[in-house]
Amino acid sequence: MVPEKRYSWLRLLLKYRGTALPRMQGRLAFTTLLAVGVTAVDLNVRFFHPDLTTIPFTLIGLALSIFLGFRNNTSYDRFWEGRKLWGGLVNTTRTVTRQILTLVNEPEARKDEAGRPAESEAIATFRREMVYRVIGYTHALRLHLRDQDRLEELAPFLSATEVEALKGELNRPIAILQSMSFRLRDAWQRGWIHAYHLPVLEQSLSVLTDLQGGCERIKSTPIPLSYTSLIHQLVALYCFALPFGIVKTVGVFTPVVVGIVAYAFYGLDAIGDEIENPFGTDPNDLPLSTISRMIEVNLRQRLDETDLPPLLKPKGGNLH
Amino acid sequence: MVPEKRYSWLRLLLKYRGTALPRMQGRLAFTTLLAVGVTAVDLNVRFFHPDLTTIPFTLIGLALSIFLGFRNNTSYDRFWEGRKLWGGLVNTTRTVTRQILTLVNEPEARKDEAGRPAESEAIATFRREMVYRVIGYTHALRLHLRDQDRLEELAPFLSATEVEALKGELNRPIAILQSMSFRLRDAWQRGWIHAYHLPVLEQSLSVLTDLQGGCERIKSTPIPLSYTSLIHQLVALYCFALPFGIVKTVGVFTPVVVGIVAYAFYGLDAIGDEIENPFGTDPNDLPLSTISRMIEVNLRQRLDETDLPPLLKPKGGNLH
Amino acid sequence: MVPEKRYSWLRLLLKYRGTALPRMQGRLAFTTLLAVGVTAVDLNVRFFHPDLTTIPFTLIGLALSIFLGFRNNTSYDRFWEGRKLWGGLVNTTRTVTRQILTLVNEPEARKDEAGRPAESEAIATFRREMVYRVIGYTHALRLHLRDQDRLEELAPFLSATEVEALKGELNRPIAILQSMSFRLRDAWQRGWIHAYHLPVLEQSLSVLTDLQGGCERIKSTPIPLSYTSLIHQLVALYCFALPFGIVKTVGVFTPVVVGIVAYAFYGLDAIGDEIENPFGTDPNDLPLSTISRMIEVNLRQRLDETDLPPLLKPKGGNLH
Amino acid sequence: MVPEKRYSWLRLLLKYRGTALPRMQGRLAFTTLLAVGVTAVDLNVRFFHPDLTTIPFTLIGLALSIFLGFRNNTSYDRFWEGRKLWGGLVNTTRTVTRQILTLVNEPEARKDEAGRPAESEAIATFRREMVYRVIGYTHALRLHLRDQDRLEELAPFLSATEVEALKGELNRPIAILQSMSFRLRDAWQRGWIHAYHLPVLEQSLSVLTDLQGGCERIKSTPIPLSYTSLIHQLVALYCFALPFGIVKTVGVFTPVVVGIVAYAFYGLDAIGDEIENPFGTDPNDLPLSTISRMIEVNLRQRLDETDLPPLLKPKGGNLH
Amino acid sequence: MVPEKRYSWLRLLLKYRGTALPRMQGRLAFTTLLAVGVTAVDLNVRFFHPDLTTIPFTLIGLALSIFLGFRNNTSYDRFWEGRKLWGGLVNTTRTVTRQILTLVNEPEARKDEAGRPAESEAIATFRREMVYRVIGYTHALRLHLRDQDRLEELAPFLSATEVEALKGELNRPIAILQSMSFRLRDAWQRGWIHAYHLPVLEQSLSVLTDLQGGCERIKSTPIPLSYTSLIHQLVALYCFALPFGIVKTVGVFTPVVVGIVAYAFYGLDAIGDEIENPFGTDPNDLPLSTISRMIEVNLRQRLDETDLPPLLKPKGGNLH
Repeated sequence: MVPEKRYSWLRLLLKYRGTALPRMQGRLAFTTLLAVGVTAVDLNVRFFHPDLTTIPFTLIGLALSIFLGFRNNTSYDRFWEGRKLWGGLVNTTRTVTRQILTLVNEPEARKDEAGRPAESEAIATFRREMVYRVIGYTHALRLHLRDQDRLEELAPFLSATEVEALKGELNRPIAILQSMSFRLRDAWQRGWIHAYHLPVLEQSLSVLTDLQGGCERIKSTPIPLSYTSLIHQLVALYCFALPFGIVKTVGVFTPVVVGIVAYAFYGLDAIGDEIENPFGTDPNDLPLSTISRMIEVNLRQRLDETDLPPLLKPKGGNLH
Repeated sequence: MVPEKRYSWLRLLLKYRGTALPRMQGRLAFTTLLAVGVTAVDLNVRFFHPDLTTIPFTLIGLALSIFLGFRNNTSYDRFWEGRKLWGGLVNTTRTVTRQILTLVNEPEARKDEAGRPAESEAIATFRREMVYRVIGYTHALRLHLRDQDRLEELAPFLSATEVEALKGELNRPIAILQSMSFRLRDAWQRGWIHAYHLPVLEQSLSVLTDLQGGCERIKSTPIPLSYTSLIHQLVALYCFALPFGIVKTVGVFTPVVVGIVAYAFYGLDAIGDEIENPFGTDPNDLPLSTISRMIEVNLRQRLDETDLPPLLKPKGGNLH
Repeated sequence: MVPEKRYSWLRLLLKYRGTALPRMQGRLAFTTLLAVGVTAVDLNVRFFHPDLTTIPFTLIGLALSIFLGFRNNTSYDRFWEGRKLWGGLVNTTRTVTRQILTLVNEPEARKDEAGRPAESEAIATFRREMVYRVIGYTHALRLHLRDQDRLEELAPFLSATEVEALKGELNRPIAILQSMSFRLRDAWQRGWIHAYHLPVLEQSLSVLTDLQGGCERIKSTPIPLSYTSLIHQLVALYCFALPFGIVKTVGVFTPVVVGIVAYAFYGLDAIGDEIENPFGTDPNDLPLSTISRMIEVNLRQRLDETDLPPLLKPKGGNLH
Repeated sequence: MVPEKRYSWLRLLLKYRGTALPRMQGRLAFTTLLAVGVTAVDLNVRFFHPDLTTIPFTLIGLALSIFLGFRNNTSYDRFWEGRKLWGGLVNTTRTVTRQILTLVNEPEARKDEAGRPAESEAIATFRREMVYRVIGYTHALRLHLRDQDRLEELAPFLSATEVEALKGELNRPIAILQSMSFRLRDAWQRGWIHAYHLPVLEQSLSVLTDLQGGCERIKSTPIPLSYTSLIHQLVALYCFALPFGIVKTVGVFTPVVVGIVAYAFYGLDAIGDEIENPFGTDPNDLPLSTISRMIEVNLRQRLDETDLPPLLKPKGGNLH
Repeated sequence: MVPEKRYSWLRLLLKYRGTALPRMQGRLAFTTLLAVGVTAVDLNVRFFHPDLTTIPFTLIGLALSIFLGFRNNTSYDRFWEGRKLWGGLVNTTRTVTRQILTLVNEPEARKDEAGRPAESEAIATFRREMVYRVIGYTHALRLHLRDQDRLEELAPFLSATEVEALKGELNRPIAILQSMSFRLRDAWQRGWIHAYHLPVLEQSLSVLTDLQGGCERIKSTPIPLSYTSLIHQLVALYCFALPFGIVKTVGVFTPVVVGIVAYAFYGLDAIGDEIENPFGTDPNDLPLSTISRMIEVNLRQRLDETDLPPLLKPKGGNLH
């Protein structure tokens, strides 16, 4: 993602990186050259003139506008839903951390009996391990959504045995949630968590499951191919045919007009393509690495750790 | 569903399978031939010329654009809501599995009394049977939504008696949920589930009921017929009348223009038709078989099973 | 509602019943005749010619398109929200039935003491009566939304006293929920329902209350009159004035063009009117009778009853 | 609100009250007179002719259509959200009444000990007072949203002390909720409400808090001024400039065309203004008085009262 | 935010402050001057005439209208979501205050034993401190969203130690929530909060976490840069090129027409920019200071305090 939009109006006009231009420059150049060719033939040869008139462009323009608008909205909705899901991840990891720190406690009875320090160390360790697992889950989800197989990134947050066990798992984040769930049950059975409070923690795990499922849904289900292909075809057909329709009226400025119109339509089409899957690593995709690092820092600060990794800075103008 | 859209821009332009073209090629050919006929008559006979002018096409174009846009949005919303519901099924089956594995336990008291192994085997069997029922529910819902009567697909996940009992049921998935609910009650009465935790599991069954009801709603309630028929009529009227309106201006290129415009409008209309009911087996419908197989594999992996069926691969370019 | 849309493309083009045509044929005929008159005068008298030109039609066309699109979306949203609410009713009646069957039980203690059959019969009766009340609630809500006063339809599901008591009630479905709530409290006080599980059942009654309130809201609050009247006026003004604007350009084909344009605009307007209140008995309204019968059959099947009424079949092509 | 839209198509065309016309007749008359002036000058003086052509109107028309559509949708969304919130109020007051009547009970233990009538009268009084407070809350919220300071309307539902105490309160409905909350706590401490059931009632109070906050949000936050002023300016500019653009083409009919176009645009703009704040007392605003009276009657009927005030009837065609 | 829109229609037409004009006056002046230049050259030099015709403006106009409409909707959705989140903050702070005041109590047992006043003072202090922390959280969230480092504003609501501890925190509001959570746990362990009621309070903290996360999401994730830059470019390109397209037709009035069109398009674009991030201090941004002051006054009134700060009044016509 390109961070904080603080460009002046003028600088935005001239920006290249992070815009749709790199994606569409090939087809834009081709279309403009085609328009130059058509204009040249029309001005010189004279007797070759398939005049389509502007009628079809006005008529299809409506359908195209519907389609591009629909596509824009849908792609942005996917982008924004993805962002909401990761925002939910930020919230829920904070919530589950707070719950781990406050709802896991030594039972009153045992405290009185054996003096305070009976299990307090074991409980502190348990809390820390659980919060680390939440961090590990976040990183595992990021890797899962980006199809990256870097188990070593999870090593600081899980035990070696667990990391090993994850190797055979089809869905690693879910396996981590399962193991967190087993640990919570054990804590309940040991009396560290009140029976009334276990459902509260269980509920937070369900929310994480739902958030993950939402991300997987966006990733695995593109906009139906029939939409995507029809819109690509109509945009291309429109731009390729345009010079034949306007060369009689516009004359020598045909390539300029075609270039401008093609820039608009190809641009709209290309942006839709780019943000349709927001979990990739395109310039305008969501900065999952930045967010998961921020979660890591925030949660470790809750454990009163001070040896924290730095927040990620934009590389080459982009957050990843 | 056509999986992972990784076609280059150029290949998408030329794609046939999975696009709207197969659905509309008949009416597209007819309309273009009609335009050829009108053009031929106009150029040769000369004295037969009902000139509708382009006025009505511009005026109706607006209404048509509203309608097609509305239709597109509504159909896609239905498609995406269907996907969300099945995404919710993925999430909730994972959640209910996690809950079954952690909230069903031997009560502390009995353990102490008779040593650990008293009921632990019965509980392990119970857990496995319950998770299998969740898988069976998923497959039953898929068959239910596709009006398929293949009870044999449920046999591996339910007891023979249960499969037999499902034969007379109008709504088989609901019957499976009911029987799961009875088993949970029995487990609670035996002390395997804490009274405070039973509502948590019951809540998950309610979520499954809601997800199923959502799917049934989309399946049983099409977009009102008056919408569908009006849009079909207007699109057809528009395309059939178009040659009479533009032949005076566009002349010999009339069939080309009519073909392009009809391609756009018939295409938009046909796509809406195709994804309106997303639970069918059209190329752009939701891959329920693939999803339910994935759920099966994921849940059985949670039971530490290793003898798992393979995930489904696309057949002829499509997932089912 | 017109059931399962399985008409071929061609049959849909020629359909009359269930489309918007019956609603608008009067004004459509009037408008076309007006156009015939204007054309006749213009062609013969010649010196009477108020030429409005097509300018106002293009300019207002935009505003009209906004308005019709807005109206279409809003009406459909109301229709679909109504459908969702009744879908929620299907789900919640299933859920509450499952909860009644599994959460209402004889307390462990008493079983041991007096042998099993102490209260089991009373509990079975209680469960059945409660499920019957759920069915009765569904039918009462249907009658309530359709302003039908057929108390006799509720007689099979409630006691005679209760039916009598409903006579004076302003809001009968709410009164039924209240009496269900009292019975649940009694069951809790007798120990048939665990104190922790009573909120679960109470929550389901709250969901039913919310669903009913949603239906009442749609029914009692039409789209603001200022919207409806402005759109009616603009559509009529547009169609009445159209012949004066195009007769100079289109000539003898004016009535054809006016007819087509009026068909589109009146059609869009009429459909919005029809589905704005989805709880009526118009052809495109929601089939409340069919849904509530289906609920009845489903719930009674859960009670293992076999003497079930048939599901409703379409009458004259429509479900009611 | 204008109740139940049951006007025939023809009567709707001619309606004045409750439509947007009264709001915009001034500016509509002014604009039409301006057009008459411009036409007269153009036809007679001849040499004064600033011909803007129709180009700017077509080009701005697009931006204007976006803006009016956006405004329409946003205003209606605010109207409908307001209606949903008051619908939620209807539902939640019913739910909380049902909960008060069933979850507030004399504890089993005390009944046995001292015979039944020990506290049953006190509890009946408590229930009635609580339901009256719910009614009082509804009326207080209505007065709060309409900035009306009629404390006397709350007198029948609260004690004199409470009414007195409300005088100094900035937010009276919230103060009523707070006092209900204290009473529920007292009931719990006396054993009238089970500790497990107190959160259920508390949850209903939270829902009321959320509903009230939603209403306050709509009331206190208009659509940003920059939107409202830009759309007003563009609509006015458009209509004032229109005669200069079309008088050359349309000639003597210019005032007719300008009148029609201005009617459409001013109308759309005025409706947006009217329903933007739905809690006022304009003809198309929400009938808060009617709804709160209905809530009062419904809840008192639940207390088996028979001396009920009548439901409100439309005054001069409107509900308030 | 500009408060309560009560301007007459005429005054709104002439308003400058709070409208989009200040933001765009530079580019508007430049574009109009360019049009003056083009017109002057065209009228005098005559032989320099690149006539683009109006075709490209009509064709791109469609794409532009899609884009501006999309941008408008998205920006307003962000604005309104931000408002909803702060509305949720108002609601939840009220709810959590009510819960603190009613669910934190001295346990029955201890009261009887040692007479009433045993811990009642400590509990009153605890309640007040907790409510103050809720107020402190609100102010901290405001400062956090506006990147303001004024810790001194929190001093009246937190202890000096706590304020000191906040200095090193990356996310101060979350740290405050964490400390509230610890205090609630302590209160539960002391018996001041019932074990069943702790999850109710914990749930309210989770809602606050979610609301804060939602605000952070809006703040940190702008609309993708590729959208923003494409729309800026197309609007500018359109307005700069417009005089070349219309000067042949419109002649000497070209600057007027260009000025009007540019006013519309720049205006729409500028408003989108302004409210995209609603947590700033622009005239149309959300009045976070006003809302958090109102929360402070409301909550302190619930503690029966009378020495309250005044509600904020608009400064220079704006609320902040």
